[in-house]
Amino acid sequence: MKKVAIVGASGYSGEELVRLLLHHPQVELTAVNSRQNAGRTVAQVFPKFAGHPKSRMLRFTEPNAERLAKLADVVFLALPHGVAAEFAVPLVQAGSIVIDLSADFRLKSPEVYKEFYAQEHPAPELLKRAVYGLPEVYRKQIQDAVLVASPGCYPTSILLPTLPLLRAKLINPTSIIADSLSGVSGAGRKGELDYLFCECHESARPYSVPRHRHLSEIEEQLSLAAGAKVTIQFTPHLIPVNRGILTTLYLAPAEHFNDAPRAAAFGDKIAACYQSAYGQEPFVRLLEGEALPDTKNVVGTNVLEIAWRLDPRTGRLIVLSAEDNIVKGASGQAVQSMNILCGFPETAGLV
Amino acid sequence: MKKVAIVGASGYSGEELVRLLLHHPQVELTAVNSRQNAGRTVAQVFPKFAGHPKSRMLRFTEPNAERLAKLADVVFLALPHGVAAEFAVPLVQAGSIVIDLSADFRLKSPEVYKEFYAQEHPAPELLKRAVYGLPEVYRKQIQDAVLVASPGCYPTSILLPTLPLLRAKLINPTSIIADSLSGVSGAGRKGELDYLFCECHESARPYSVPRHRHLSEIEEQLSLAAGAKVTIQFTPHLIPVNRGILTTLYLAPAEHFNDAPRAAAFGDKIAACYQSAYGQEPFVRLLEGEALPDTKNVVGTNVLEIAWRLDPRTGRLIVLSAEDNIVKGASGQAVQSMNILCGFPETAGLV
Amino acid sequence: MKKVAIVGASGYSGEELVRLLLHHPQVELTAVNSRQNAGRTVAQVFPKFAGHPKSRMLRFTEPNAERLAKLADVVFLALPHGVAAEFAVPLVQAGSIVIDLSADFRLKSPEVYKEFYAQEHPAPELLKRAVYGLPEVYRKQIQDAVLVASPGCYPTSILLPTLPLLRAKLINPTSIIADSLSGVSGAGRKGELDYLFCECHESARPYSVPRHRHLSEIEEQLSLAAGAKVTIQFTPHLIPVNRGILTTLYLAPAEHFNDAPRAAAFGDKIAACYQSAYGQEPFVRLLEGEALPDTKNVVGTNVLEIAWRLDPRTGRLIVLSAEDNIVKGASGQAVQSMNILCGFPETAGLV
Amino acid sequence: MKKVAIVGASGYSGEELVRLLLHHPQVELTAVNSRQNAGRTVAQVFPKFAGHPKSRMLRFTEPNAERLAKLADVVFLALPHGVAAEFAVPLVQAGSIVIDLSADFRLKSPEVYKEFYAQEHPAPELLKRAVYGLPEVYRKQIQDAVLVASPGCYPTSILLPTLPLLRAKLINPTSIIADSLSGVSGAGRKGELDYLFCECHESARPYSVPRHRHLSEIEEQLSLAAGAKVTIQFTPHLIPVNRGILTTLYLAPAEHFNDAPRAAAFGDKIAACYQSAYGQEPFVRLLEGEALPDTKNVVGTNVLEIAWRLDPRTGRLIVLSAEDNIVKGASGQAVQSMNILCGFPETAGLV
Repeated sequence: MKKVAIVGASGYSGEELVRLLLHHPQVELTAVNSRQNAGRTVAQVFPKFAGHPKSRMLRFTEPNAERLAKLADVVFLALPHGVAAEFAVPLVQAGSIVIDLSADFRLKSPEVYKEFYAQEHPAPELLKRAVYGLPEVYRKQIQDAVLVASPGCYPTSILLPTLPLLRAKLINPTSIIADSLSGVSGAGRKGELDYLFCECHESARPYSVPRHRHLSEIEEQLSLAAGAKVTIQFTPHLIPVNRGILTTLYLAPAEHFNDAPRAAAFGDKIAACYQSAYGQEPFVRLLEGEALPDTKNVVGTNVLEIAWRLDPRTGRLIVLSAEDNIVKGASGQAVQSMNILCGFPETAGLV
Repeated sequence: MKKVAIVGASGYSGEELVRLLLHHPQVELTAVNSRQNAGRTVAQVFPKFAGHPKSRMLRFTEPNAERLAKLADVVFLALPHGVAAEFAVPLVQAGSIVIDLSADFRLKSPEVYKEFYAQEHPAPELLKRAVYGLPEVYRKQIQDAVLVASPGCYPTSILLPTLPLLRAKLINPTSIIADSLSGVSGAGRKGELDYLFCECHESARPYSVPRHRHLSEIEEQLSLAAGAKVTIQFTPHLIPVNRGILTTLYLAPAEHFNDAPRAAAFGDKIAACYQSAYGQEPFVRLLEGEALPDTKNVVGTNVLEIAWRLDPRTGRLIVLSAEDNIVKGASGQAVQSMNILCGFPETAGLV
Repeated sequence: MKKVAIVGASGYSGEELVRLLLHHPQVELTAVNSRQNAGRTVAQVFPKFAGHPKSRMLRFTEPNAERLAKLADVVFLALPHGVAAEFAVPLVQAGSIVIDLSADFRLKSPEVYKEFYAQEHPAPELLKRAVYGLPEVYRKQIQDAVLVASPGCYPTSILLPTLPLLRAKLINPTSIIADSLSGVSGAGRKGELDYLFCECHESARPYSVPRHRHLSEIEEQLSLAAGAKVTIQFTPHLIPVNRGILTTLYLAPAEHFNDAPRAAAFGDKIAACYQSAYGQEPFVRLLEGEALPDTKNVVGTNVLEIAWRLDPRTGRLIVLSAEDNIVKGASGQAVQSMNILCGFPETAGLV
Repeated sequence: MKKVAIVGASGYSGEELVRLLLHHPQVELTAVNSRQNAGRTVAQVFPKFAGHPKSRMLRFTEPNAERLAKLADVVFLALPHGVAAEFAVPLVQAGSIVIDLSADFRLKSPEVYKEFYAQEHPAPELLKRAVYGLPEVYRKQIQDAVLVASPGCYPTSILLPTLPLLRAKLINPTSIIADSLSGVSGAGRKGELDYLFCECHESARPYSVPRHRHLSEIEEQLSLAAGAKVTIQFTPHLIPVNRGILTTLYLAPAEHFNDAPRAAAFGDKIAACYQSAYGQEPFVRLLEGEALPDTKNVVGTNVLEIAWRLDPRTGRLIVLSAEDNIVKGASGQAVQSMNILCGFPETAGLV
């Protein structure tokens, strides 16, 4: 049994971490931190977890890095970027393992961080020690990590479907377009007018066009896979669901397939590529036949669904993915990383 | 006062036609047809219109082309494709003006119709007499039309933003990608499991990938504007709103703008192009400043919103549009065509 | 043409007033006030109204009673209680007609106000000049009013169905139970966590049990109708719709109807009572046959629907009502009062 | 390990049974029946369960009682009433344990069944062998049952809060009013227009007023607890959520509490009554302090929340409950009964 703690446990990702870690068979949740809820029990803050006996004993406390380092072997940070780094530094120094859900340690370069997050990186010296926590890609590195930068929700939905194709040189790296739809929980539990029920219900809207912050980590990872700088198009949209991201990727195949035999042959390569990459992965589901991704089939799970279609009319490859933005896109994936680095079965507490 | 009738008034488009025509200052609704509701008053079928005195007197009847031709100067067909053509033929022969909301008369070619709708065209001889009812493009032709083929909901959301750019040769016609989100009313009022509340709520899903029927009319209209055959990429998605289509267009500009002055100059051309095309249009709203389309700002109106962004990182032009799929995407646009061909103010009954 | 102004035009009721007054055929909207939006045009703040030419010219300004009194014959106050009274006093003194949508002038007694709103009444001297703006009940008094206290949304949905029965002594005044469901817009456009999309979607919850502030005006009006003090049970619930109130009333008939003939006879009395009260009312719809109220049939309209059932098993009378909380429950009803006191047709701008 | 089967596994309750039984630690799901899905794997019909290895091996088959009796120790029937009884008879004869989620065996009297379900009872001889599967009330009887009639969703939400009060004679049995709000899944997975997304979204509506079928089992159970015939008022409403029932109960206390000390004393009795009934129950949560039930806190769990308030103004007791209509209101409760009669821990597979 490992002891684990959560800093910033009042937001949607924090709440999901509480759920996953309370029910995880190989960890004990020893501390939950949140300024606004300090003093209240987990059961009081989240009545839906009140069925778990621990929820009625464990109380939220003010975050304190020194105390956390003593209470927990692994600390999850579910904090805004900037603030997360401030907690990570003393925790890593004190020997705790840190799994950070913010953007603070996802990039290799403090300059790119500054470009996209409009502030100096708060702990540039730690960047080189961080591992990008996408288990399907960095499983080995996560095993020995002391600081895991858990990927963003949009990046996960875009990287998992594209990285194998890029690495296999099946697609042209210069032409990637990612069009994503996200549930409102992605905006966080913040009292802003834009996310009121009446402003989101019966609304569909794009935002951060054409330059969303997540582009920085998406492009860094794609560039690493392609072996050359990759710049992509990415348009996020807000739709009225609580949870879920649906991403549609428009890709230019590296081959032309202007007749049926060539299309079939190229299709076989894509199928083989995905099968090789994800055929044994517990949390990537390759859809078959007529099936297309639907967020309702992944919400509440740590699974990312992938389907693809070749369009003989345009010569393009369309890849579609669906995930729960708070599970595979945040807290579930963070727990998956914890499982790997603690030597637990990778699916522990996630199925 | 013109006399108007609706055939197929029980679906969502038919219901919206009832609403618009009941309140239209220059027409009298003399007949509403629907097999399933025959015998019931409009107020009984649609309680929300019961405030209008006419709704309590007008009863649904079985559709009958011969009788309709006597009762109405203008007949709206809100019927499935295939069935619509069967009604159009005798009505046009009898001298009625027909405004058809189905796909039956939108294409010039019966071969393309067969390719996309999987059946022989039921009235190929009428195709050449039909006018594509997109008022912002075919206003003059609509004035003298006897048969208006009112555009589909997706096509309207895609054509209005792209046609001016294509005609002005500001974009490359071979690279158009349209990614659309639609409310569930687009699927019609049909008792199918896929459109039950519990199957749509908390769901976001693509469908008809990569080949939706609406591609046929979209590509025909784009080809006419470009003066060459245009093939596009189009992915529709179903999202849990009653109404609204949000379309994101990924376009390749005809010019490179790899420095700020060129980007500014090219941006000016786009702005001028849209201003020239739609600056005086009552039902196209060009958004300014930071504003982006949001379906909630157009639902219930006949307005299509357009915004655009140049992306200096990718060299692409992103254009976004929002409309009410049942109003500008169907019944409102049909009434707009009626206004034009009857010589009414174009906005009559639509504001 | 009367000149009208709105103070507090940024909330949901204020926004609906803007919509109704922009399109009203007999008034000119001369001022819209809101601290947070001062300087912006109506079209910028509410893109959905941008189709109206006036929306692009009229700018929000800081509220100023003195200036308002010059700009407008009628001033609508869509402000929080307490603040509304502060504006009402100088406006009434300056000779403006004030239609207040807050709770400040709905009660006759400043003591009851203090009991339910936990503050001293800010302008007790004005209470006796205020008329409760429920047109179906106080039409005559509204004609000559200088200060109209427009009723709350829940009270409207409860009073219209019960007052005729009470006045006709068809129900026992001591046994009234009102169970209401409200859309989230009733909570106002405020950045509070409880009304975030993710907190309301897939949620149904009671609140203010057993003592909601609206009880004060409901009971005052019921007591006036009954000629004796009436105390009722009222439970509001929040449900995930933007708009609409559905109220279910459990009433004890003044007569027993333990056999079919008596039940039929008593049913005739209720039908006659409602017919007499509302048969000619443009904004009350008495449902017939099997029909039951549904908020979707009244949303966007100024109509309140009523249906009733006698339950021979329990001897109770069940009355059900539906309204749009922002229209008949707030802004539409306020405009209806304005129509009455300005001598316009009562339905002007409301159908 | 017990072998279990599900007949009628394509509806919402059946789907939830599949989820619960696939993951249950002490059972093996050996058969899932459904006419419409016969031949397809569980993973194909319900992609969200595809993560479970069994889901890709287990195929839906045509229902066949004889074969089921060999394949399974316990058979769950998630069928329409009438049909369920036809399956139950041969299964019980063959020695299988049957847990029926329909209404067929919930009533003691075939006459009352006929009155409420408008058909002759299909297997009256089995009625006396059936146990009403409300574990908090009939735990002992369930232990030895061969046929469990699992309660309806509304009855569960009404009976659990009222039975202890009735048995303790704290409320007047003749005055019970239950006002319930249900998610749309309660209507089943049926292709009916009334339950289409667009007909339910932005709608709140009552139905089956004043006589819903579930009254029969509610009143039978209340009568047993009260020792006399009880007739209640019950009004169900449909609201736009997938899952959840929120019930508000209006009750007349057996005592008057017109001063604070008496109210406090009576409140203590109620608290003690509930504590005694449910203090140790794993699936009933007695809310404390200011907390009120909210369906979002129980959805996906087998928990029913209860809160209560005394209203000193009216002398009434208001009790509120929330549950997931498909879990505690159907499939979860059925699994809870299975746990009891198989001798498993009662919470197995349910937390």
